[in-house]
Amino acid sequence: MFWTQKEIILPEFSHGIHPITSQLLSELPELSRVSVGLLHLFILHTSAGLTINENTDPDVPRDLDRVSQTLFPEDFPYRHTLEGRDDMPAHLASSMFGCSLTIPVTQGHLRLGTWQGIFLVEGRYHGGRRHLILTLHGQE
Amino acid sequence: MFWTQKEIILPEFSHGIHPITSQLLSELPELSRVSVGLLHLFILHTSAGLTINENTDPDVPRDLDRVSQTLFPEDFPYRHTLEGRDDMPAHLASSMFGCSLTIPVTQGHLRLGTWQGIFLVEGRYHGGRRHLILTLHGQE
Amino acid sequence: MFWTQKEIILPEFSHGIHPITSQLLSELPELSRVSVGLLHLFILHTSAGLTINENTDPDVPRDLDRVSQTLFPEDFPYRHTLEGRDDMPAHLASSMFGCSLTIPVTQGHLRLGTWQGIFLVEGRYHGGRRHLILTLHGQE
Repeated sequence: MFWTQKEIILPEFSHGIHPITSQLLSELPELSRVSVGLLHLFILHTSAGLTINENTDPDVPRDLDRVSQTLFPEDFPYRHTLEGRDDMPAHLASSMFGCSLTIPVTQGHLRLGTWQGIFLVEGRYHGGRRHLILTLHGQE
Repeated sequence: MFWTQKEIILPEFSHGIHPITSQLLSELPELSRVSVGLLHLFILHTSAGLTINENTDPDVPRDLDRVSQTLFPEDFPYRHTLEGRDDMPAHLASSMFGCSLTIPVTQGHLRLGTWQGIFLVEGRYHGGRRHLILTLHGQE
Repeated sequence: MFWTQKEIILPEFSHGIHPITSQLLSELPELSRVSVGLLHLFILHTSAGLTINENTDPDVPRDLDRVSQTLFPEDFPYRHTLEGRDDMPAHLASSMFGCSLTIPVTQGHLRLGTWQGIFLVEGRYHGGRRHLILTLHGQE
């Protein structure tokens, strides 16, 4: 059994939904050691999330973000407003998209579908650099 | 430690939310070998998802689908429209319901609650046959 | 490899989103045995869910709940109504927040971010005591 766990720090992203598959793969040379396993991604923040969606047309994450802004609007009469008008919509996006992903690993590679990529859901206008915990485990 | 991973192909389903627990179980005779473990399900598509909900009254998945059609409407002014009016709502459903599930395994069985079943969220009108990766691991 | 799995029963909570991190930790003395691992939480119900969000200002879970009541309203023309007007909104919350969580474990502790806590999403007015399956696995 192989286990490894590491914390990585993403660059700062603007408000929106951004592809991060390439950066994650560059941080995970250990993937090549796993024949059958799982990769778990966990974001250590409550105003950002993680999701998997289409990695080809950049309008897909843009549209996902535009609809999420209508579902989790800034002009709702929130009580939690001290951290800014973008904060509660960001908390909502974090819970609804989710703060973690688990992805199968096969023969040293992430077993993603042809069109699937991994995205950061950045809910804040100035969210800063986001920290992720990557946990990889499986059979060597 | 026991690990197994396989790709399965579901039959084509119509747009909506459909029970797939029985088919998944029929594809997993290896469950009986696991005393304590986890089953991970992952759909290799960005216009369909997976969810767990009530397995008894078929009106529950129907109502889930009807509300998701109001949350992820076809008449939103999407930019990504080339693949049809059902495509962006399907991408939204995939991210919001989620593309994977992890379910506990106990004494050779899925440890689902009395009313819980596993459902495919088919977001397209003609989505075709959907491919899933099943990863089962645990103690023998 | 260390594996343990147990069922725990939460106290009854009112409709809303409630912090449960402390109770979960008190049920998991085995955490101290895991140096690198994962904790999986699974709720055995279809009218409640689990989520991670801000653990400091109690207005955050209140606002999450208030928005989820607008997204999953009681006055939608549901077909599944026999179990009460709060039942379908509860099924929706269960699928959209999700019924399980996976959290990294490092050096005997849950690797949560500074502001992150674990919450029960109670979708019913009288949901009763909710049962969870905790599955902890990793390297000793």
